[in-house]
Amino acid sequence: MKTPICADLGIDIPVFAFTHCRDVVVEVSRAGGLGVLGAVGFTAEQLKQELDWIDANMGDYPYGVDIVIPQKYEGADDMNADDMLEKLEAMIPQAHRDFAEKLLGDHGVPPFSDESGPKGGLLGWTEDTARPLLDEALKRDNVVLIANALGTPPVEIIDEIHQTGRKVAALCGKAKHALKHKQAGVDIVIAQGSEGGGHTGDVGSIVLWKQVIDAIHPTPVLAAGGIGNGQQMLAAMAMGAAGVWTGSIWLAVEEAEAEPAEKQSYFDATEEDTVRSRSFTGKPGRMLKNVWTDAWEGPESPGYLPMPLQGMVTFDAMRRTKRYAGVGECQKVGFNPVGQVVGQMQQVETCRKVIARLLTEYVDALALLNRQMP
Amino acid sequence: MKTPICADLGIDIPVFAFTHCRDVVVEVSRAGGLGVLGAVGFTAEQLKQELDWIDANMGDYPYGVDIVIPQKYEGADDMNADDMLEKLEAMIPQAHRDFAEKLLGDHGVPPFSDESGPKGGLLGWTEDTARPLLDEALKRDNVVLIANALGTPPVEIIDEIHQTGRKVAALCGKAKHALKHKQAGVDIVIAQGSEGGGHTGDVGSIVLWKQVIDAIHPTPVLAAGGIGNGQQMLAAMAMGAAGVWTGSIWLAVEEAEAEPAEKQSYFDATEEDTVRSRSFTGKPGRMLKNVWTDAWEGPESPGYLPMPLQGMVTFDAMRRTKRYAGVGECQKVGFNPVGQVVGQMQQVETCRKVIARLLTEYVDALALLNRQMP
Repeated sequence: MKTPICADLGIDIPVFAFTHCRDVVVEVSRAGGLGVLGAVGFTAEQLKQELDWIDANMGDYPYGVDIVIPQKYEGADDMNADDMLEKLEAMIPQAHRDFAEKLLGDHGVPPFSDESGPKGGLLGWTEDTARPLLDEALKRDNVVLIANALGTPPVEIIDEIHQTGRKVAALCGKAKHALKHKQAGVDIVIAQGSEGGGHTGDVGSIVLWKQVIDAIHPTPVLAAGGIGNGQQMLAAMAMGAAGVWTGSIWLAVEEAEAEPAEKQSYFDATEEDTVRSRSFTGKPGRMLKNVWTDAWEGPESPGYLPMPLQGMVTFDAMRRTKRYAGVGECQKVGFNPVGQVVGQMQQVETCRKVIARLLTEYVDALALLNRQMP
Repeated sequence: MKTPICADLGIDIPVFAFTHCRDVVVEVSRAGGLGVLGAVGFTAEQLKQELDWIDANMGDYPYGVDIVIPQKYEGADDMNADDMLEKLEAMIPQAHRDFAEKLLGDHGVPPFSDESGPKGGLLGWTEDTARPLLDEALKRDNVVLIANALGTPPVEIIDEIHQTGRKVAALCGKAKHALKHKQAGVDIVIAQGSEGGGHTGDVGSIVLWKQVIDAIHPTPVLAAGGIGNGQQMLAAMAMGAAGVWTGSIWLAVEEAEAEPAEKQSYFDATEEDTVRSRSFTGKPGRMLKNVWTDAWEGPESPGYLPMPLQGMVTFDAMRRTKRYAGVGECQKVGFNPVGQVVGQMQQVETCRKVIARLLTEYVDALALLNRQMP
């Protein structure tokens, strides 16, 4: 498609695929979109392995990396990551740990046996843990975009990324946050409506997109939240979006590394089966509604801790229910962030098929609009 | 525009304007759209006056009437409206009445002096009160559409309307409700996403529209919730909507009969200033967030009563805050149902100007899509 963002980033179709799976990154980029690897939760060593694999398999195509680059925490200057982790751990009430552990136990979720992952729950959300991830990404020639999933990245980090010739994107759920991003120097704003999976506000896409596009014009805006087919993509482009940022639809593609039970949970869900819940990270995020999300809202709940504490409590739950998705009643207490578009997800497709389908549906819908031309 | 629904209803542009103001009905229809008078809250006598005025001023243009045609209440057969009202009144705890009255008093809302309106709060939401409204509407030659704002209308009522040669529309917020409507014989389904004003579910427009359109194809679907300009209209049409159902944008047009203070409250609001609240009718509806909506969620709140009881408690608050919108702190406790699109509403325009703007923005946005054609 002949859009400025396609020319800028060297892609054929302005479909951005957020995914934690390296295979999906490669397949989407090779099909003409831009694969973006969600690196939160990886250690620097793990990220290096993933990016090595991507570079070995990608050929000449561009891709992106998504990191959470936080503003500094108050008082964090004098502390290393281990000290901070310890200090934060001490702030977690035992009742929260017990509540989470009991939910897992009651539903037969096995303990995690592999301790090679990142330490309990900071998930790369402090500058100390994010920095090595960013450095690793910036070593890669084919990385054309660094995306920031939460908040406005620090100005000096944006400058640093710009000096390497890459673009910076950042997510927002409110028009005023988009303005903040732009003022800080962000090149591309991703406006994610309430329909979307993961951290999301409560303004719906059809309103948010318009508000953000108008607020920061001519800065390009990627539309996110509720895009699963070519008609929804056309709707976003009709409003002046520079492209679409998609996540949910890549969770169950053939190339996605996930247990069959997890993929099936998406096919089984309707558009009514998600909920915006603070139960995993402490901030409202959309995910499949299940026993876990209900329990944290229920009368026995100890309440939610603020980020990053809630995520430290639930980190073990996240990885155990992901790893053992098909075991016991893991799906009842599992962490499955996904948007309302899950109701449209019906079957396993390849990434290439999804991209081709988006394009076909887009072209067909545009032809219909032209036949109805006022 | 050359769409089937335009041909069916004899309109030029598939923009449906829901409004409680007769002037807006006339102006929108005369500008090529379809004005739809929201008749809930009118007595039959009041509705007769409004429709007489519309018929005298409309000329040859079509319009619609929106009524709530409920399924029968259990046990309602043996009761007339007065008996039912009395029985329902007896079910309302005094604490709820006191809580509402205290909020009004604390914010200087004057008592209502005019008792000519309908009796306290059933608002035409029982068959006994809805029937005379429907009969009145069916006397009018230019009424081409009867819309039902809540639930599936009874099959025998749909048949009766069909026999007079008119179409029946019904709102939904879930795909499964759209299917129920279709099975009952409804001709046109209005799919209203969570962004919309008034009663609304929690599925966002961009997802809901797609799901409903697919679920009941080829039954026409009007897209509602978040449509305030031509780009948003194009987005809806891109997804295969037969037209758009709009409400919020008509609240502050020049022809809308509302106190300046009420119109100003919309211009002052951003897309973040609405909330889905049960505080007025007992069912979740989107409205301006204010002291009233906060108080009913607060620690002193007696909780929400089910429909229609909550509406009977708040009926007096609704009409007092509407009538005396500019007095005291009425806006802090007023009932202002409106969608998130309120953030786009900036100034008073005429109905004709709004329709012209929608068309211009639509055509411009479509031209841009064609330039970016894949």
